[in-house]
Amino acid sequence: MRTVKLDLDHAPYQILIDRGLLTQVDLILPLLPQPRVAIVTNETVAPLYLDPLRSALAARGVQVQAIVLPDGEVFKTWETLNLIFDGLLAARCERKTTLIALGGGVIGDMTGFAAAVYQRGVPFIQIPTTLLAQVDSSVGGKTAINHPLGKNMIGAFYQPRLVLADLDTLDTLPAREFSAGMAEVIKYGLIDDLFFFEWLEANIDRMMARDTGTLAWAIERCCQNKARIVAGDEKEQGQRALLNLGHTFGHAIESGLGYGAWLHGEAVAAGMMLAAVASEALGYLDAAAIERIRALLTRAGLPVVAPALGVERYLELMAQDKKVDAGTIKFILMRQLGQSYIGELDYATLTRTLQRGCA
Amino acid sequence: MRTVKLDLDHAPYQILIDRGLLTQVDLILPLLPQPRVAIVTNETVAPLYLDPLRSALAARGVQVQAIVLPDGEVFKTWETLNLIFDGLLAARCERKTTLIALGGGVIGDMTGFAAAVYQRGVPFIQIPTTLLAQVDSSVGGKTAINHPLGKNMIGAFYQPRLVLADLDTLDTLPAREFSAGMAEVIKYGLIDDLFFFEWLEANIDRMMARDTGTLAWAIERCCQNKARIVAGDEKEQGQRALLNLGHTFGHAIESGLGYGAWLHGEAVAAGMMLAAVASEALGYLDAAAIERIRALLTRAGLPVVAPALGVERYLELMAQDKKVDAGTIKFILMRQLGQSYIGELDYATLTRTLQRGCA
Repeated sequence: MRTVKLDLDHAPYQILIDRGLLTQVDLILPLLPQPRVAIVTNETVAPLYLDPLRSALAARGVQVQAIVLPDGEVFKTWETLNLIFDGLLAARCERKTTLIALGGGVIGDMTGFAAAVYQRGVPFIQIPTTLLAQVDSSVGGKTAINHPLGKNMIGAFYQPRLVLADLDTLDTLPAREFSAGMAEVIKYGLIDDLFFFEWLEANIDRMMARDTGTLAWAIERCCQNKARIVAGDEKEQGQRALLNLGHTFGHAIESGLGYGAWLHGEAVAAGMMLAAVASEALGYLDAAAIERIRALLTRAGLPVVAPALGVERYLELMAQDKKVDAGTIKFILMRQLGQSYIGELDYATLTRTLQRGCA
Repeated sequence: MRTVKLDLDHAPYQILIDRGLLTQVDLILPLLPQPRVAIVTNETVAPLYLDPLRSALAARGVQVQAIVLPDGEVFKTWETLNLIFDGLLAARCERKTTLIALGGGVIGDMTGFAAAVYQRGVPFIQIPTTLLAQVDSSVGGKTAINHPLGKNMIGAFYQPRLVLADLDTLDTLPAREFSAGMAEVIKYGLIDDLFFFEWLEANIDRMMARDTGTLAWAIERCCQNKARIVAGDEKEQGQRALLNLGHTFGHAIESGLGYGAWLHGEAVAAGMMLAAVASEALGYLDAAAIERIRALLTRAGLPVVAPALGVERYLELMAQDKKVDAGTIKFILMRQLGQSYIGELDYATLTRTLQRGCA
């Protein structure tokens, strides 16, 4: 079993990575303030993994409430969040009842936010069942729901007590979902880990074949990278913004096409390509580096051309982003392959980038 | 000007108490990370106090967005909260935009919760305009909205950067609202401040006449008492629960009659009488003490008899309370006049109390 320790302000916790973790409830039991949990999952994940987890907990005397939500980014709304509150209140769940998120990034973000605000905060455990959630959304304590005017606009910083990344759950992940997770994996190479980027170039076929040892090492590396960046900047005042590489463009793509048309990871992949193209225009990246990024994303089954929403529409969508400060949009750009920075783009460069980088 | 300092974990701030504070924007300006605020208020308060505050800020170069909500506890819902998010997003308010709550407890609770979760947290200032908000709800960082199945069920602990208690705003407060605030004032005497309870017995007429010096001293005393209790237990793991004297019964009254039928303070007053009657049944309070409590509440214009909802309905409503631990309802009871404690009530005593204490 691989272990990544996060030591965030007042809330240290561990990420455990291995096969067969879902039913190892000995990992969970010591963390429960009372023998009672509410498992929040969705209609896709529930038939696969809810019963094994529920049975294992019940066999140890834990009272289990299950709340099954509809599946998809389009349901990452207040209305769906309220289904969690309805379930918790109908079952009279208390302040010491622990919420367990069993699912991908949407379930993790919504359950985490529900845990942050139900009765002003209850304990919370993450069991991410997608690659994207295992390497990214379950690490670092960001929780949120979407608002019609912007993605992740309503949320909280709230840390889980434990993250169980069970590699078995990746076996059932559809190819498109797995690829979407690979976008965030590749992102860590591009942020500040050239060694990892080159390791991915050498091991991409084994990754896509979901080889256990390869997956476990890559997930650990991603979590370590994210943990290091988050620990230095828990509330995103500075360097944590690097984790948003590809996300300013990506959120605009998701929002512009309507949530759910593209998967989050797909939009991030196309967004990272736009960031690379912009960085080339600024004179930082050369054509060879661009080509290596494009090749790796393509081999991971990801889109490398952003949809043609039009320059003005992109600007309008990006102006709504949380990473706006005094009217200026912040972009994560690349100084060189494997080294990103927080910068700005002038209107001309941004226009040229969107013209070159979109379909 | 009277000042109460709160030194809560990572977020020290001041409560300032005086006349004429609303337009003293020099108190606010140094706390703004950017010259931009969103004032959240309601349809009752806006015609009285929005323009003076807005003008004073605008005259100093601050960009002001106003969000005016409907007035009343019945609007302390997600739907109304969402009007704040709609307003903030439509105006493209950023992470450094400060939210100012201008109103009573409902506005303070909702604005504080909006500040806690908008873009995962933005700065927040309280300008409470009711007695209840000045002595209670604006102190200590509790924010929340109601859920159809329970009061204040969704919320956060989130501290303001400043509280301005402008005594001028109490001049326009309807008598019923002022009395409701007096319930929380008297509560501090009953929790652990016999000196203050007796001071109130001696000064209740001056209080009800809204004499400036009397008000200022009483508000300062309440804030000091609350600050002391909260500082020892910011997340309500223990002694902070004392602040809920009268509230377990009170929330049941509010919820059982439908939010808005009784004001929160009225329900708390009747709830404190039930707590006193229960304490007498347990052999702690004598008839003379009960009579003094009843007399002071009555002189403050408050109800001392709870509505007859029926014992079973009370139990059902109270079982939904946040102060439930492992199925046991916690009650705040009185060991003697001016000394409360966190305890439990057996079924027989509770039944007898509700039969004796209700209409």
